[in-house]
Amino acid sequence: MSYQLLEQRFQQLHHLQHLQAICGWDQATMMPDGGNQARGAALAELALLHHQKLTSVEVADWLNTAENEELSDAQKANLHEMRRRWQNAALLPDDLVQARALAGSRCEHAWRGQRKNNDWKGFEPNLKVVVDLTREAAQIRAEALELSPYDSLIDLYEPGMTSNQLLRIFNDLKTWLPQIIRQAGERQSQYSPVKPEGPFPAGRQKSLGLHAMKMLGFDFNHGRLDISTHPFCGGVPEDVRITTRYNENDFMSSLMGVIHETGHARYEQGLPVAWRGQPVGEARSMGIHESQSLFFEMQLARHPAFLHRMAPLIKQHFGDQPALEADNLIQLYSRIEPGFIRVDADELTYPAHIILRFEIEQALIEGKIQVHDLPEVWNTKMQQYLGLSTKGNDAMGCMQDIHWTDGSFGYFPSYTLGAIYAAQFAGAIERDIGNIGDLIASDNGLSLIFNWLKNNVWEKASLLSTDELICQATGEPLNTQWFRHYLEQRYTML
Amino acid sequence: MSYQLLEQRFQQLHHLQHLQAICGWDQATMMPDGGNQARGAALAELALLHHQKLTSVEVADWLNTAENEELSDAQKANLHEMRRRWQNAALLPDDLVQARALAGSRCEHAWRGQRKNNDWKGFEPNLKVVVDLTREAAQIRAEALELSPYDSLIDLYEPGMTSNQLLRIFNDLKTWLPQIIRQAGERQSQYSPVKPEGPFPAGRQKSLGLHAMKMLGFDFNHGRLDISTHPFCGGVPEDVRITTRYNENDFMSSLMGVIHETGHARYEQGLPVAWRGQPVGEARSMGIHESQSLFFEMQLARHPAFLHRMAPLIKQHFGDQPALEADNLIQLYSRIEPGFIRVDADELTYPAHIILRFEIEQALIEGKIQVHDLPEVWNTKMQQYLGLSTKGNDAMGCMQDIHWTDGSFGYFPSYTLGAIYAAQFAGAIERDIGNIGDLIASDNGLSLIFNWLKNNVWEKASLLSTDELICQATGEPLNTQWFRHYLEQRYTML
Repeated sequence: MSYQLLEQRFQQLHHLQHLQAICGWDQATMMPDGGNQARGAALAELALLHHQKLTSVEVADWLNTAENEELSDAQKANLHEMRRRWQNAALLPDDLVQARALAGSRCEHAWRGQRKNNDWKGFEPNLKVVVDLTREAAQIRAEALELSPYDSLIDLYEPGMTSNQLLRIFNDLKTWLPQIIRQAGERQSQYSPVKPEGPFPAGRQKSLGLHAMKMLGFDFNHGRLDISTHPFCGGVPEDVRITTRYNENDFMSSLMGVIHETGHARYEQGLPVAWRGQPVGEARSMGIHESQSLFFEMQLARHPAFLHRMAPLIKQHFGDQPALEADNLIQLYSRIEPGFIRVDADELTYPAHIILRFEIEQALIEGKIQVHDLPEVWNTKMQQYLGLSTKGNDAMGCMQDIHWTDGSFGYFPSYTLGAIYAAQFAGAIERDIGNIGDLIASDNGLSLIFNWLKNNVWEKASLLSTDELICQATGEPLNTQWFRHYLEQRYTML
Repeated sequence: MSYQLLEQRFQQLHHLQHLQAICGWDQATMMPDGGNQARGAALAELALLHHQKLTSVEVADWLNTAENEELSDAQKANLHEMRRRWQNAALLPDDLVQARALAGSRCEHAWRGQRKNNDWKGFEPNLKVVVDLTREAAQIRAEALELSPYDSLIDLYEPGMTSNQLLRIFNDLKTWLPQIIRQAGERQSQYSPVKPEGPFPAGRQKSLGLHAMKMLGFDFNHGRLDISTHPFCGGVPEDVRITTRYNENDFMSSLMGVIHETGHARYEQGLPVAWRGQPVGEARSMGIHESQSLFFEMQLARHPAFLHRMAPLIKQHFGDQPALEADNLIQLYSRIEPGFIRVDADELTYPAHIILRFEIEQALIEGKIQVHDLPEVWNTKMQQYLGLSTKGNDAMGCMQDIHWTDGSFGYFPSYTLGAIYAAQFAGAIERDIGNIGDLIASDNGLSLIFNWLKNNVWEKASLLSTDELICQATGEPLNTQWFRHYLEQRYTML
């Protein structure tokens, strides 16, 4: 049966991905600088092998034949995901794929220096090459998938999501989010939380992070915690590698970072064992992935009840000081402050960063604006959404993210979709089990929450579409009101 | 040109080996237990891909055509090494390769428990399967390579070496080594060195090891030091990963272990950059590899002059105590004591362990003895060579090594060849540069030694045969008298 042959082939591809994931993790955490060139060459060879095995002619034949074979629902879903992966790899001609990889790698490499030097003039021509090639790729994908060019890129990260739907979601946010931000600002002006005084030795921060991971059910028999410049969750479901970085003057950022990555990790560790190695057994989308990390960070860890549990542990690690009282930590962990940098943004102003990028990306891919226009458009929207000017400061503006440098247009919306899904899951959990604060405070409440996530999200992997997954778990499709409700509760009503 | 196509193919294979090396290192140092099954499957897939790419039909054609192409001497040497690798992979039928892998993995896995329980009866049938399949493989190799069956296995680790040559070497050792052991025993009975008192925290041991590595020129931009149950040198020349283990009651063993692996590492790091990724650019043989680790450990690090330099550093790490005086360390690091276990053996009694294994392996592969006879033969030879009985204690006897469990017959002689080569290199260095003790004690003497090794050994990679390499470096073929001279100096004349 062709379907069986496909399962075998995708099992092989999964093994190659395993090698990629571990060597990629090693590159970011363990590898000395001098090893980089050889590693790059080895990983490029692996990527080529993966591409060849995925796009070889027999795969297309098997995909077509398998459509007519008798398959279970799960097998059908697997076949669907196989075709998606095959399409994503096979749609673009090899020379375009190579040109994009080359331009992306050049642009990203140059960007590291150019961003530091606020050198837009130097960056602009590199980015233009990337954008031109991305437009070309989007055009080809659009025609084959019968989507608009920008939607064909979004589909890489959020299968089934469209820019029209995102537009509705983001327009809705625009109607109520500014009001919450205003109220939150007024409320927080009444408090003056104290900043914890360091130093906070890296070794103790690590120990604290490991405690938090344990509390949150991370399976250390199938994963570990290490250090990297840019924190991430990598590895494979059987061996999930999360990373953080330590600033000895500030433990709060690493602690929340570790918890965020623990959310990603538990999703991976909780994927169904029966479908290991098959596309349908992988995470549903970037948005759902982010919903798990944000659920762990926002819905659980920044919750007052959680910080009440953490405070004694934190004091145990760093010694007692007034700033480490639970109430002070709660205020610190819910401060908001409009800023230039997306990755440093708080939960309330984060969506503005995403909406700005979404609007710019769409216009850019569709040719309504050009690379040359980016600094001005960025500045205009930053003034409009966050009241900040990036004029002459592109390092803090349109040059701040790595995503565009290698052509990952269409990714940004996933971050805010994740935040919205996370709040909706929290609402469903309160409906199904009980108040989240009470659950956190109780002995086995966290376990109940994790079981709910396991049953409704992790074990579903890609067996359902995102819409089906959300509907089955929460009783309705994506609904921004849960996000609104949650933000009001957390930021305006304490 | 076929030769160019071969270079491309071997470059690809090199990239796959890179992934294997890093993921294998990770498995031994970083991976949580729960990741083992998935890792095993991914590495098996990689091994299969490697095998397929090495043995695909076009490679045989290219090898034949390239013989008639105009090539430089180095290219000819490369072609020779390519053919060796191709032969080693292609000679055996796939089902025999798979049967051996399976039997080896089963036997090794069961052995871990059976050795602990001294369960020869349980081990015997597993080992018999491995030996039967190894005999079969040896027979096929022997016919193709026109060697005796056992020689065809030795050739995997020591290209060009034969059992007749080994017999001459070992018989020679037998005539003079017992006398040195006797004299060394008498001499050491006059001293009572003091044992250092711990604890020696692992962190400080690590720092001490890193100091020693730095002193010995390890390039940390192209490598690192980590922990594993069984110390090894892995990774790739651009990124060499050595490991050790720490016993907090004894720093001496880890320190020497780190220095031993540093010798392996400098060989790898010193391989010629121009030939990276090609077979001719790889280490010459297991024996030459071991000669470098033993040169670092025995010729350099256990040298009184080196221990005089190390003693202050050691005290700096662990605090002062009489046992850490240089003279005491020198005595401790040259104690000899016949024992059951090869890996714990001192330099003087180690060859006896090897000769015993060599004689047994040869008889076993040639069918002169059977697996069933091993405990008795082992016991007889241990009594004869080291005066120790292993009767009823096979865990300390013929079950102690991992090598036979997966069919690595023919490997053991490399250890003692390495010791002999190391002494011969030391002799040549004294001829070319000066007394090793004086060099160690001087400011840049170690650099001069390393330069000599780089020029005469490391950069030669596999460009010469082992015999040529030894002759060019030392002016004569392998000569055991250098080893004898060195052992007499170190153990009987101080």
